[in-house]
Amino acid sequence: MNIISLITDFGLTDNFVGAIKAAILKINPRAQIVDICHEVKPQDITQAAFLLRGAFRYFSPDSVHLAVVDPRVGSQRKKIIVRTKDYYFVAPDNGILGLALKDEPPIEVVDITNDKYFLKPASDTFHGRDIFAPVAAYISKGKNIREFGQRIKSIRELKLPEVRQAHGVLTGEVIYIDRFGNLISNIDKNMLYNFIGNKKIKIFIKNKTIDKLSRSYCAVSQLKPVALIDSFDYLEIAINGGSAKDSLGVDKGAKISIKIC
Amino acid sequence: MNIISLITDFGLTDNFVGAIKAAILKINPRAQIVDICHEVKPQDITQAAFLLRGAFRYFSPDSVHLAVVDPRVGSQRKKIIVRTKDYYFVAPDNGILGLALKDEPPIEVVDITNDKYFLKPASDTFHGRDIFAPVAAYISKGKNIREFGQRIKSIRELKLPEVRQAHGVLTGEVIYIDRFGNLISNIDKNMLYNFIGNKKIKIFIKNKTIDKLSRSYCAVSQLKPVALIDSFDYLEIAINGGSAKDSLGVDKGAKISIKIC
Amino acid sequence: MNIISLITDFGLTDNFVGAIKAAILKINPRAQIVDICHEVKPQDITQAAFLLRGAFRYFSPDSVHLAVVDPRVGSQRKKIIVRTKDYYFVAPDNGILGLALKDEPPIEVVDITNDKYFLKPASDTFHGRDIFAPVAAYISKGKNIREFGQRIKSIRELKLPEVRQAHGVLTGEVIYIDRFGNLISNIDKNMLYNFIGNKKIKIFIKNKTIDKLSRSYCAVSQLKPVALIDSFDYLEIAINGGSAKDSLGVDKGAKISIKIC
Repeated sequence: MNIISLITDFGLTDNFVGAIKAAILKINPRAQIVDICHEVKPQDITQAAFLLRGAFRYFSPDSVHLAVVDPRVGSQRKKIIVRTKDYYFVAPDNGILGLALKDEPPIEVVDITNDKYFLKPASDTFHGRDIFAPVAAYISKGKNIREFGQRIKSIRELKLPEVRQAHGVLTGEVIYIDRFGNLISNIDKNMLYNFIGNKKIKIFIKNKTIDKLSRSYCAVSQLKPVALIDSFDYLEIAINGGSAKDSLGVDKGAKISIKIC
Repeated sequence: MNIISLITDFGLTDNFVGAIKAAILKINPRAQIVDICHEVKPQDITQAAFLLRGAFRYFSPDSVHLAVVDPRVGSQRKKIIVRTKDYYFVAPDNGILGLALKDEPPIEVVDITNDKYFLKPASDTFHGRDIFAPVAAYISKGKNIREFGQRIKSIRELKLPEVRQAHGVLTGEVIYIDRFGNLISNIDKNMLYNFIGNKKIKIFIKNKTIDKLSRSYCAVSQLKPVALIDSFDYLEIAINGGSAKDSLGVDKGAKISIKIC
Repeated sequence: MNIISLITDFGLTDNFVGAIKAAILKINPRAQIVDICHEVKPQDITQAAFLLRGAFRYFSPDSVHLAVVDPRVGSQRKKIIVRTKDYYFVAPDNGILGLALKDEPPIEVVDITNDKYFLKPASDTFHGRDIFAPVAAYISKGKNIREFGQRIKSIRELKLPEVRQAHGVLTGEVIYIDRFGNLISNIDKNMLYNFIGNKKIKIFIKNKTIDKLSRSYCAVSQLKPVALIDSFDYLEIAINGGSAKDSLGVDKGAKISIKIC
């Protein structure tokens, strides 16, 4: 119960993440802190939600996931703890947990209000260090989450671009591009397999057509485009040995269509 | 007593930080190493001093702070250990500790000379790995700092741009810009509050006027400039939901003036 | 036996490294994970080999070095464990271990095939998380490496540019440029000292001549070029207080010659 994962937009060029870790270890010196990512684009809640959704399930049960992308810090937005079957999540109530909680639904949600557990004086500009970090640290030590505030019933949802199906065509879009230039869509494995059944398909992106799903990047020749279900269960378009983003000249928001042949 | 914080300009694209951590853990396998920042601009002692000053106090008492920005590595510049009320600092004697030690004054300073504790052979180009890391590791295991060399009385200071007060105007400058484009000045909370008293103020930066101090970014409308005391106790100019650096076209060194109305 | 070092090209802007660490800690919660580098240029096996070679020896004996730059993931390329005198290495069989194993020769090599130890279902696009991480975690817990597959006799080598010697001139090239713009050559200390003996030399790079080896950057005036054996035992060209890459306008592949005078 001592693992705390961190996902933030605090970057690695300042001292924000170091201060958060220090605050955690001051309360729980046995905490094992694991960075999921700190290079989330400043204030990009959707990107953080996506990265958290991909990684959270690989952690040991009882891990605490601390997610801080918090453009409304210091405002009246809530600060929440969410307990699910296997994990605790601590975050501002702004949708950042939206994708993870689709896979792992909330069992209990608490509105963090008990300032007994905050750093003093708590700033209004860095709740990551002064409120969220201590709360996560105390949870990782076994403190009951009801200590931090009242139960609440609903939290903010995350709006994502929708996948549409019409006239035998499934249309989604690129919602994330990784370091390798791989294009990750909002079409997940279940959606895609339900749509395809046992039929043949063609996949369209920009001016390219890909005529099957492959299992690995190397299933096609070097520098050719490939479509596959990626290791986080989304439909992904890649270039074997290259960058699909650069080769295809594609950015976030680009449409991807799948057509039954 | 097992926490060692690291702040360096070694970056994350090489293997320098990994080698330092390996060297620490070889001596103290129980050390808990926390990165404050490794993306300090190469050889920018002032930036490191600023980031260390912001973060050090959040660590547990007895933590060892290892700070290595060391343009004179291999020269006759001293290598020092500084003991303060709550912490140990290990660093080249070049001013890098200057700001932290203003807040937490030195109790004892040792000139590191005892090569019994160095990696062998110690290079003349990477004291971070060969000298500072082992020394920090031994301190974190409880070794008395007098083991590493003789006490000395003075260390090098850090020259910072001064805040000036004249004709009812307090003038400082931007000394740091964070990942979000927030502009951090050299005017700290105490200075500012002493100057203001209970009077009204106006804050001037470039061609903008801000007519009060706020408590949080969200205290102003989206994309409007806001002035506040930041979470590290400095006067900061920000744009709610944006980058002050980009919006105001301001860089390090830009003047900030506060005028009593 | 609980240290696992990581070197990958997964970067820090995605969640890949976080997922790998989570997978390791789920199997061995006591593992101490140390990042050597994740910013290896995508798919640049040689760069990873170079960085691993520089760092591996600073780790405690029995550490497990996990190296994943894996352009052929999902293909028939082997996945290997290499046991040496002091360490275990886990990696795709693509040459990434080539330089480290020159210094620390293999005692036993195992072809990883036993999927009992893989995450299920193991993807064909992210063996770092699904295969290499669990295998490294089990080794760090003391599992015998023969559990993971059969012994094999040979592994893939790494092709590096060769150092040539002719007519009293030793010629190598820049194979790595670090964050500071220092130019690291493929000429190692032993090669160089054997060539020099007790004679005088001149070192040529682009249009510059350097007339001796120094011990530290500061051995020359500010902003002057300096040649030295760096802290990883390679001949390095630097600029005291500056970037040799920028000042000399030199990139990877640039020739460096040493001439006996």
